[in-house]
Amino acid sequence: MSESIPHWLTKQADLAPKQSAVELEDGTKITFLELKTKSQSFAKKLATSGVRKGSHVGILSNNNIHMIIAIHALSYIGAIGVLLNTRLTTEELHYQIKDAEVSHLLTSVELLSTAERLDVPVTHSFSEIDHMKERAINLQEELQLEDYFTIIYTSGTTGFPKGVMHTYGNHWWSAIGSALNLGLSKEDKWLAALPMFHVGGLSIYLKSVIYGMSVLLFEKFDEKQVHHAIMNRGVTMVSVVTVMVQRLLEELGKESYPSKFRCMLLGGGPAPRPLLEKAKEKEIPIFQSYGMTETSSQIVTLSPTDALEKLGSAGKPLVPAQLRIHQPDAEKVGEIYVKGPMVTKGYFKNKEATKKAFQEGWLATGDLGYVDEDGFLYVVDRRKDLIISGGENIYPSEVESVLAGMESIKEIGVVGKEDPTWGQIPVAFVVVSNSVKQEEIKLYAKKRLAKYKVPKEIYFVEALPRNASNKLVRTKLLDLIP
Amino acid sequence: MSESIPHWLTKQADLAPKQSAVELEDGTKITFLELKTKSQSFAKKLATSGVRKGSHVGILSNNNIHMIIAIHALSYIGAIGVLLNTRLTTEELHYQIKDAEVSHLLTSVELLSTAERLDVPVTHSFSEIDHMKERAINLQEELQLEDYFTIIYTSGTTGFPKGVMHTYGNHWWSAIGSALNLGLSKEDKWLAALPMFHVGGLSIYLKSVIYGMSVLLFEKFDEKQVHHAIMNRGVTMVSVVTVMVQRLLEELGKESYPSKFRCMLLGGGPAPRPLLEKAKEKEIPIFQSYGMTETSSQIVTLSPTDALEKLGSAGKPLVPAQLRIHQPDAEKVGEIYVKGPMVTKGYFKNKEATKKAFQEGWLATGDLGYVDEDGFLYVVDRRKDLIISGGENIYPSEVESVLAGMESIKEIGVVGKEDPTWGQIPVAFVVVSNSVKQEEIKLYAKKRLAKYKVPKEIYFVEALPRNASNKLVRTKLLDLIP
Repeated sequence: MSESIPHWLTKQADLAPKQSAVELEDGTKITFLELKTKSQSFAKKLATSGVRKGSHVGILSNNNIHMIIAIHALSYIGAIGVLLNTRLTTEELHYQIKDAEVSHLLTSVELLSTAERLDVPVTHSFSEIDHMKERAINLQEELQLEDYFTIIYTSGTTGFPKGVMHTYGNHWWSAIGSALNLGLSKEDKWLAALPMFHVGGLSIYLKSVIYGMSVLLFEKFDEKQVHHAIMNRGVTMVSVVTVMVQRLLEELGKESYPSKFRCMLLGGGPAPRPLLEKAKEKEIPIFQSYGMTETSSQIVTLSPTDALEKLGSAGKPLVPAQLRIHQPDAEKVGEIYVKGPMVTKGYFKNKEATKKAFQEGWLATGDLGYVDEDGFLYVVDRRKDLIISGGENIYPSEVESVLAGMESIKEIGVVGKEDPTWGQIPVAFVVVSNSVKQEEIKLYAKKRLAKYKVPKEIYFVEALPRNASNKLVRTKLLDLIP
Repeated sequence: MSESIPHWLTKQADLAPKQSAVELEDGTKITFLELKTKSQSFAKKLATSGVRKGSHVGILSNNNIHMIIAIHALSYIGAIGVLLNTRLTTEELHYQIKDAEVSHLLTSVELLSTAERLDVPVTHSFSEIDHMKERAINLQEELQLEDYFTIIYTSGTTGFPKGVMHTYGNHWWSAIGSALNLGLSKEDKWLAALPMFHVGGLSIYLKSVIYGMSVLLFEKFDEKQVHHAIMNRGVTMVSVVTVMVQRLLEELGKESYPSKFRCMLLGGGPAPRPLLEKAKEKEIPIFQSYGMTETSSQIVTLSPTDALEKLGSAGKPLVPAQLRIHQPDAEKVGEIYVKGPMVTKGYFKNKEATKKAFQEGWLATGDLGYVDEDGFLYVVDRRKDLIISGGENIYPSEVESVLAGMESIKEIGVVGKEDPTWGQIPVAFVVVSNSVKQEEIKLYAKKRLAKYKVPKEIYFVEALPRNASNKLVRTKLLDLIP
């Protein structure tokens, strides 16, 4: 039997109506009561536009308060939010919208023209909805933990993105696991500058209503503003990716953070060791973590107290998550399997991918790693040659399959190259049939792929490294650089 | 589908093997790894004595480390613990043991002779089990949240105690609700002096393994020792009942508690206003709470920040609990209904009582109360004339039905009388057929009832106050005192 909980935002509005739920860059504060009132009103207006319980509603927006209200409004209706990455091309967005059976699309004013090109039956900006009349509907007073709430796409090895379905329970348990690991205090204020269309960003706003915690909302990451906020605005926690840590370190200079700043939660791929050492010198409380869309944000975390001894480790699985290494080799390295109530139950309309991903209740992450004698996880290789650039996931196979469509390209291999700023950048190795310029290839890619996926460097080679069964060996690609 | 979580003690032993799980009065510390090892070993020895998955195992013990190990051992086997109140008479214990279908009884050495009188097929002291050989059995690696773990008896209006069944999920969600309300810190150390056979005491040891928190175990409450521990042993939280607050206040005198002491969780019945005012003067962080065996410990709590403004309130329902007042009258007073995943699913082998207690998923507590305009609960009258004396529940009907069996007593009414030390004490009003002395009645009661249930005062009256339908009106009994 599924457990039900009172609607999390209503609950906080009851418990702490006057407490700040969201604080904007300009200092404006929205209390839990106001957030509830606005979200419920928005829900009733969405009903006017035709959104029903079970509707799939796309959201195409960068971080802003309207997006938060829209997401909570969907939970009051019982509709499912399909969160779209604003960095994607029209073609990429189109695929996700069609695959996810999106019937309504919500967007911010500045993205309205992009949104309208996506051919969704009903498309509105947040402000258009706001001008509608409310329709009297029954709002959800309780949330069933087994009900689906969001779909977020993640690319896979096949090149076709898959829609990861998250239940209310997945988000709830993720927030609880994080609290049991990081602790919880009435003083907490979480700075959110990660995009909300990724699960790591979204999770902060859900923690806000589950914990009754204030979130400082930044539309985007700006190191000067974030630094200023940590120093002066009572921030206790912040979620970041590697490139942000680098910039914040530069910003920090010889200063040090206030003592109440207690957690810099670092996700989105491995961090270079020199960076971690530098952060340690500055006594920055970095919590390295490991997670993916499928785990509803971090599922393994390393605390600063262990960081000294276990540099480079991603830590231990959060309560109540489990971790094991599947078929470890002589060096104990094998595929990382995870399990827990924060792990997705599967991919939307993709039974085959779901079946493949789950082995007896465990999620096969595709990442390789080992666990040391003290139980700490070390990620050796990201899943299926995944490239992580500035916190964004790039699947080589996706980039390859797009560029393989270019007439002059006979063969292509894409791989991640270390980069001091972005962690990694995608680079391509091509065998061409007739003369073509680097810029032409990049232009072709740019039209079809999100900017961050476009190879930053292109190398013309005579042949690609292949194994006995003629399969591309991506790990050897970088050796081809002259 | 029921969620499963890794076994909570194994999990903490993996996460923080060297951290102190339990600290004894003499300063001995048992780490999470040691606690796991001991509990698993005890489980294998219990298997030798015949305990199996699903066995009902009575535990008759005052607080000690062996009792904690035994309880965790049961969870490794998947057996159900029936926690017995050591203050009960043989007759009372006999009823519960029979009703709960207890097949094995575990006890401390000093209670062994009492235990052996209870005719349980297999009875052993903890130390007898410890001397057995281990039997190789499969220990539970995961806990299914829907599985039953403990049965704790609570008396009812009918006079027959009912066995409240708690699932792993009930205990888990109770711990999570408490953490979301009280916050969570790696610095926390909870002093436990409440009896573990009550759910309020038990819950502390389960929080310990769910949070990874150290518990300071006291065999019983002694104000001098508890005071000393709060002042000198890094205690941050303590669970108490009213009478303990009073004694601690006297002990505190003109001193004040260290700043890291952040929570005195007050349960087990209403606290007199003067006491709360006195505690406030001393800046003691008292969290008043409301709960019962059926809610797996507190379900409504008032924080110190609200205590000033809402003196006398029990607070607001914890995340993710819900509260409503059933059929409120003109003054908004009605029966308190609660709901949430920490609420029991029912009474053991007592469908009728379960059916009566639950109304469309809500537990009808039988207590009367109202919710003010800000959402704070005020308990007006405890359920069914419940008397709470020193944190122990006494049901007048139970005492009445026992004493009604005495030949000389024609009619009897029992009610709680305010008492500066115990909160309330039970007093009896009797109509007798022939001359009998107070002492004879008390002696009769003492043989059949736990000491705390024996009426402390007995009044001989000519008639009892009754309503039109000839039903006893207990609220008018105290008016008969000359």
